[in-house]
Amino acid sequence: MNPSHSHPLRIGVFDSGFGGLTVLRALLRELPQAEFLYFGDTARLPYGAKSRETIARYAVSAAEFLVRQGAEYLVIACNTASALALDDLRAALDIPVLGVVETGANAAQAHSHSGDVLVIATAATVESHAYATACAERNLRAVEKACPLLVPLVEEGWIDHPVTREVLSIYFTELMHQSKAAALAPDTLLLGCTHYPLLREPIEQAIPAQIRVIDSAEVTAAQVAAAVHAPQAGTPAAPRFFATDSPAKFQRLGSRFLGQPIEHVELIDLEALEAL
Amino acid sequence: MNPSHSHPLRIGVFDSGFGGLTVLRALLRELPQAEFLYFGDTARLPYGAKSRETIARYAVSAAEFLVRQGAEYLVIACNTASALALDDLRAALDIPVLGVVETGANAAQAHSHSGDVLVIATAATVESHAYATACAERNLRAVEKACPLLVPLVEEGWIDHPVTREVLSIYFTELMHQSKAAALAPDTLLLGCTHYPLLREPIEQAIPAQIRVIDSAEVTAAQVAAAVHAPQAGTPAAPRFFATDSPAKFQRLGSRFLGQPIEHVELIDLEALEAL
Repeated sequence: MNPSHSHPLRIGVFDSGFGGLTVLRALLRELPQAEFLYFGDTARLPYGAKSRETIARYAVSAAEFLVRQGAEYLVIACNTASALALDDLRAALDIPVLGVVETGANAAQAHSHSGDVLVIATAATVESHAYATACAERNLRAVEKACPLLVPLVEEGWIDHPVTREVLSIYFTELMHQSKAAALAPDTLLLGCTHYPLLREPIEQAIPAQIRVIDSAEVTAAQVAAAVHAPQAGTPAAPRFFATDSPAKFQRLGSRFLGQPIEHVELIDLEALEAL
Repeated sequence: MNPSHSHPLRIGVFDSGFGGLTVLRALLRELPQAEFLYFGDTARLPYGAKSRETIARYAVSAAEFLVRQGAEYLVIACNTASALALDDLRAALDIPVLGVVETGANAAQAHSHSGDVLVIATAATVESHAYATACAERNLRAVEKACPLLVPLVEEGWIDHPVTREVLSIYFTELMHQSKAAALAPDTLLLGCTHYPLLREPIEQAIPAQIRVIDSAEVTAAQVAAAVHAPQAGTPAAPRFFATDSPAKFQRLGSRFLGQPIEHVELIDLEALEAL
């Protein structure tokens, strides 16, 4: 990236909803002088249940919108889109694109001593085996587990809650059995969904002490910061938020993920834009 | 309806996904000689988190597709679309339209002696207050409760499961408190979501014995059967299934809701149709 911009470096962050705001939160900490454009495709979420073709079409149209808004760097905070649409995005765009699956796998490679990694994610991400593939490319062995109840538990606000602890205990008992059956000695757990960082504490209590949790939001922000040369001075610009539906809900629920109030969300009719 | 068709009565059933297959299952029992066209808008589900305008646009485009396929009667099996888009659908279509919210409220009126009704549904349905409004129009008092974890629990297959019983116990304790605070004496519980009939047994175990459960799938089928004059003879035609995405997943998960195998699902590119 060219460090001699006359304006702050503009980074686009894309997710199917507001879960990716956990990634933006980490990015704001790492790169306070950059200008962020966050796009949540809330009219078409969740991507998890949709086909690869549909997800790629949705993600490319959203990414092209961010480029038209001036994004010079794109972070795919959506695990499903990172898993299924990264090649399409790189082919369609002239700017660098980084996805949470590869940043998570990079971090697992850096941290794991045994080379054995556990991954929890949504059903669609697990079915894509994107994390297992990315881990294998880095000579890591991975066991993946779909945890479809965790997103609704987070959205229900049941964070420090007995039901959540029971669900986590069931999921991790199954995952440890899978891991044992595959003769792995895991020392690393990848949180493969942007909602999961909110459950980090109960997750850490539910797994063996020797397993280190890797939060893909944090490691993504660190890798973006290492890849770009953002100006270290200047007045930070407030992030801009775009959503394809329900801006009021985005503001309300999104603030919990971002950890600060969201003042304004611009509603984008992406289908009308696509039809142009 | 005209009983002298040369072809079987053709009934369109619309839902955002495959949950409405519980309604189709009940309809197949009530009207075995009718021909059913089922449309699941799986590319754009769930409708629950979307705005009224978006939901109405999606529902009307799906309904118009079913009319082009020959539907002479339309059942809106999607609670969210019934709650938010029924007027738009009736304005856009020349065929009769019946929605699960009104059929549920009709059944509550027929069955409740106290006139006090409990409703459980998704967050979007509850936020619309469609059931409370429909109940009030029938001189019933209603208390509504959003139960966002029940759909993922059903989709996880955790039907007869301790976590599901614990979640139901929490939800119904809160609902009974709400009901008491409103000074109601409920004798009826409306299942305001097409996924909930699969949880009927644990729900019945979680509520006081004097409260009768009304399954909107069953009562909708009964009210459709009373409204149409389907030929009683002739060879029943197999239902046809249309989905806007992931036909394989529709077949696999949908069979559980329909209670019988789904042989074939036609993939419809609704956005391409809309752009014509």
